[in-house]
Amino acid sequence: MKTSEIDGFFADAGRLDPEAHLILDYRVECSGDPRIAAAHLCSEQSTAQWRRVGVDEDYRPRFAAKVLDLEVETELSGTSYLLDPPVSGPVSVCRVRIAHPYTNFGPRLPNLLSAVLGEGPFFAPDVPIIKLLDIQFPDTFLGQFDGPQFGLHGLRERWQIRERPFFFGVIKPNIGLDPESFAELGKQGWLGGLDIAKDDEMLADPDWSPIARRSALLGAARKEAEQATGEHKVYLANITDEVDRLLPLHDLVVANGANAVMVNALPVGLSAVRMLRKQAQVPLVAHFPLIAATSRLPHFGVHTRVWTKLQRLAGFDVVIMPGFGGRMMTPEDEVLECIAACVEPMGPIKPALPVPGGSDSAVTLPGVHERVGGADFGFVPGRGVFGHPMGPAGGAASLRQAWEAIAAGVPLATHAATHPELEAALKAFGPVG
Amino acid sequence: MKTSEIDGFFADAGRLDPEAHLILDYRVECSGDPRIAAAHLCSEQSTAQWRRVGVDEDYRPRFAAKVLDLEVETELSGTSYLLDPPVSGPVSVCRVRIAHPYTNFGPRLPNLLSAVLGEGPFFAPDVPIIKLLDIQFPDTFLGQFDGPQFGLHGLRERWQIRERPFFFGVIKPNIGLDPESFAELGKQGWLGGLDIAKDDEMLADPDWSPIARRSALLGAARKEAEQATGEHKVYLANITDEVDRLLPLHDLVVANGANAVMVNALPVGLSAVRMLRKQAQVPLVAHFPLIAATSRLPHFGVHTRVWTKLQRLAGFDVVIMPGFGGRMMTPEDEVLECIAACVEPMGPIKPALPVPGGSDSAVTLPGVHERVGGADFGFVPGRGVFGHPMGPAGGAASLRQAWEAIAAGVPLATHAATHPELEAALKAFGPVG
Repeated sequence: MKTSEIDGFFADAGRLDPEAHLILDYRVECSGDPRIAAAHLCSEQSTAQWRRVGVDEDYRPRFAAKVLDLEVETELSGTSYLLDPPVSGPVSVCRVRIAHPYTNFGPRLPNLLSAVLGEGPFFAPDVPIIKLLDIQFPDTFLGQFDGPQFGLHGLRERWQIRERPFFFGVIKPNIGLDPESFAELGKQGWLGGLDIAKDDEMLADPDWSPIARRSALLGAARKEAEQATGEHKVYLANITDEVDRLLPLHDLVVANGANAVMVNALPVGLSAVRMLRKQAQVPLVAHFPLIAATSRLPHFGVHTRVWTKLQRLAGFDVVIMPGFGGRMMTPEDEVLECIAACVEPMGPIKPALPVPGGSDSAVTLPGVHERVGGADFGFVPGRGVFGHPMGPAGGAASLRQAWEAIAAGVPLATHAATHPELEAALKAFGPVG
Repeated sequence: MKTSEIDGFFADAGRLDPEAHLILDYRVECSGDPRIAAAHLCSEQSTAQWRRVGVDEDYRPRFAAKVLDLEVETELSGTSYLLDPPVSGPVSVCRVRIAHPYTNFGPRLPNLLSAVLGEGPFFAPDVPIIKLLDIQFPDTFLGQFDGPQFGLHGLRERWQIRERPFFFGVIKPNIGLDPESFAELGKQGWLGGLDIAKDDEMLADPDWSPIARRSALLGAARKEAEQATGEHKVYLANITDEVDRLLPLHDLVVANGANAVMVNALPVGLSAVRMLRKQAQVPLVAHFPLIAATSRLPHFGVHTRVWTKLQRLAGFDVVIMPGFGGRMMTPEDEVLECIAACVEPMGPIKPALPVPGGSDSAVTLPGVHERVGGADFGFVPGRGVFGHPMGPAGGAASLRQAWEAIAAGVPLATHAATHPELEAALKAFGPVG
């Protein structure tokens, strides 16, 4: 690209219409002149060839993505990650802020993903290493999405869960158990104090546990548990399946008594979730398969905060995400950024309930509560409830008891002295991970 | 996990029913004992908790993923890629072959993705670095998918393209051009010798080029070009959009004269493509946004061969993929593996047409032909046709002339002496990249 051409891909933020542009923050490692690399990054994701042969025209003023800010952070002797084919010579580590005119594709999730994570950014000349760190949307764009139907506050209202976390439990064994036994475990969990008993993300509609049968049993068990406890109880059915089965399965499980549905967001596709959202009668819950394959490396791919925002935009009321602790291989800051992405202001889009998960039990509740800095979260043990030595009712009770201790400002161990379920949890799952 | 428990996640291939299992090949970097890490990898993607508390049962014999082969390739003092949080101490680099019983989820793409690329493999204890290198499906699994409707051979028949590559061209300028001018460019391309004039993957249904109008103009232009040339011509319309618009847009553009449709596979979702395939009247073409974010690093994420196989399984007749040359940042072996994944035997699933793309022109055709080792491929220049100094007709003609030279065993430069379009291409786009 010639110097005169590069300038067409740079702009002052003050001279662009903020309502017409998405703001994209990338970290890149680039070869050669960072200004040329940044121009390529814009060109390739928008007006790669901006004029016809033999015609005096230029589509860049209206349609080009443009660099608002380019900061060279440091120089390296090579890329952070060895590539094949290798990149020879020094690279500049840069932060690039880009304004992308969304008139290029409109308020559509697949086209958005194609623009900001497609061939443009990932095959721009001189930019072999790139990570999309953040994305911001103007209100004119957000206003064309539904977002969560209920949202965090709607869920508190709907399920009458006040001033405490939402207690989820993943029914286990997750794979292989017949529906009758599975429903009995769920019921025990609810009776012990779970709000939401859920299918594992790997359990959907297999021959050995058809979702029609399972949801009917769990739906009935849920209602019994509601009668017995006087509390709202939720059966969260995993309807992850082929796209053309989402709506029929939603209708089926809701008719059977499920009162929330889970979808593995990326495997099914965010756009399919947006479709489901238009018809959904119950809250939508996201699970996170496939995301880590794009996000784990600090300097390549997509930051999980971006996926969190997109899941909220697609219409999920609840976002289950990798949470705290070494087991989930996610830095604490990143978990907090994803939690913030669920609840921070986002134009007309409601806040979603964040559920940072991973090998939790009564033992880890104080740490999660402290890190989140409040009670606006979901807590989602699996074995911490369903592998509890006293069974699911004991496991669920241990969560409630742990919360009693936290709310009262008492150490878990103190409260455990008079609460055998909590005591058993501390013994089985402690010390704090 | 105890030693006695680890054994339940290992099996001899000869003792498992091959028709009941997917075969997964992972490369991992693991901490500690590789046998324990491999057992975790299996446990987490299948029967994470394989018995109820207080019940004597074991779901592993039927439902556990099992290690068939574990080979320690080398030891490293740390992970290949620096992680956050960092992994301390030595790691073992291993190849792990796993048999995964697909009864756990059935013949469903989202559930398959959740199993082989989900929380299980990407959050298995002691396995921070993992790449899914390959996947093999038994015929009982494949038999439940439609795969390509036409496939490579059906496309040759349908479009009467024999013993030569399929010549695609991406109409440029891709963003900003009005539909009338855009259609005129397409027509010039066809008249010059293109088989298939296509929308860019970033051009879908924006206000300034509504697909209804664009497809009507291109559909009409295509028919005129067919009459003028006596050849079959194809307008490949990009219907990438929200999932609930795929079928209506397919119907609209086909009624308007488009005779193939393109979908950005991962942004829309493979399952939505499988849905579209059931109704599609024309060939389906895949484009590759988002894939590189999972596949570029040699040792993390997903190998592109896996995505190629899954695109074929979902029903794409044509798979556009990053091709040869430094520009596309993909090793030559990997491109060849993806081409092989399109055409190699796959039970009842038809071969797809591979289209390795990236900054092509008449100049690069001999190199692509030689590397592919035959004519069973699509060739997809953008600027190589639509940025040709003599315009799109000249650009398209230069491709045909380059093929004439190859078929006659004559150097391009020799043939160019009597073919001005080829000569102009050599001058504008050469030397060979």
